[in-house]
Amino acid sequence: MTTDETLRHLMDATHSALCEHGYAELTMQDIADESDLSKSSLHYHFDCKHDLLVAFLDYLFDGFVDRISEPAGDDPAARLRSLVDTVVLPPEEGDDDTFQTALLEIKAQAPYDDAFRARLERFEDVFVEQVRAIVAEGVDDGTFRADADPDEVASFVVTYVVGAQTRHVSVGEPYEQSAAALRRYVDQNLLTDAEEAPAR
Amino acid sequence: MTTDETLRHLMDATHSALCEHGYAELTMQDIADESDLSKSSLHYHFDCKHDLLVAFLDYLFDGFVDRISEPAGDDPAARLRSLVDTVVLPPEEGDDDTFQTALLEIKAQAPYDDAFRARLERFEDVFVEQVRAIVAEGVDDGTFRADADPDEVASFVVTYVVGAQTRHVSVGEPYEQSAAALRRYVDQNLLTDAEEAPAR
Repeated sequence: MTTDETLRHLMDATHSALCEHGYAELTMQDIADESDLSKSSLHYHFDCKHDLLVAFLDYLFDGFVDRISEPAGDDPAARLRSLVDTVVLPPEEGDDDTFQTALLEIKAQAPYDDAFRARLERFEDVFVEQVRAIVAEGVDDGTFRADADPDEVASFVVTYVVGAQTRHVSVGEPYEQSAAALRRYVDQNLLTDAEEAPAR
Repeated sequence: MTTDETLRHLMDATHSALCEHGYAELTMQDIADESDLSKSSLHYHFDCKHDLLVAFLDYLFDGFVDRISEPAGDDPAARLRSLVDTVVLPPEEGDDDTFQTALLEIKAQAPYDDAFRARLERFEDVFVEQVRAIVAEGVDDGTFRADADPDEVASFVVTYVVGAQTRHVSVGEPYEQSAAALRRYVDQNLLTDAEEAPAR
């Protein structure tokens, strides 16, 4: 059996190996090399690279849910800004670019791989739902315009964020610029006139 | 030398082969099979798959510039909606999904491939500039809000469109839905209050 600790260790090794080798070239040996397990021990836990990557996407999903589940902020506008920053801006670690590239490779595989697609849908569904809930709350309490449609705003914001991630990988568009433009979209188009955007 | 007619024929063959095999698995033989040339004749025109794909991106770029250069519409708002539809909505041909998947694979290769990245940047630059010019024109003639920043709106719209393309490939998000949401963004957030959005 795979204990939680072993799983975490293997997921860290998979993350490092993806950053080092990318998705297309990745081998079980590469992942073993990043862990303290032999390749045969690795195969005891996961039959093949595909099964391991599916488990890795599940593991990433759990972390994503934790990261986005309680965005900081005193009102819906602040919580939406905080959620956007959490998802768009890179973490502190230095190898985020190579990791985002590997994730985009996996997205491009989704049409050929139902297990990948199902996981990617879960990421988007939980993100869409979190945005939708915050927008609905903001419409109810008057922070956001009464005519804002929470479902449509949620899908719009998620599409924009996915675009920011793709453009960062493909043409090096800076995350900070994309996040700032989305914050201004929220301030200018969702807030009721009464609400003043904080100075930045 | 490669005549215009031969080039067009080879580019069509490359398009078909990408739709059939995807980017990662594509071989020169696959492209030759889609053309009326032998693999060795193909090598007379292009040294390797990479050179051929770079030429293919240049060829796509020329077509893209033609498609977006004169968006239909009597005023900047109509032209912006028309431009968005041209870029987001798929062409009539049936194999657009597989082609978009191959393009996303190429985007995910860009960090490893300067020639790909340079081509992808050209696509985005010309698209950003076209949106920017229409928005600037609309601000000048009063169609769009005076406080709309053409540079920022252009980058925002292009990021959204790239996200719509990525989500279509990775989770099957319908293009029509993404395009409709972007049209509403234009209607609700860019138009001056005087301007009425057309009924849809």
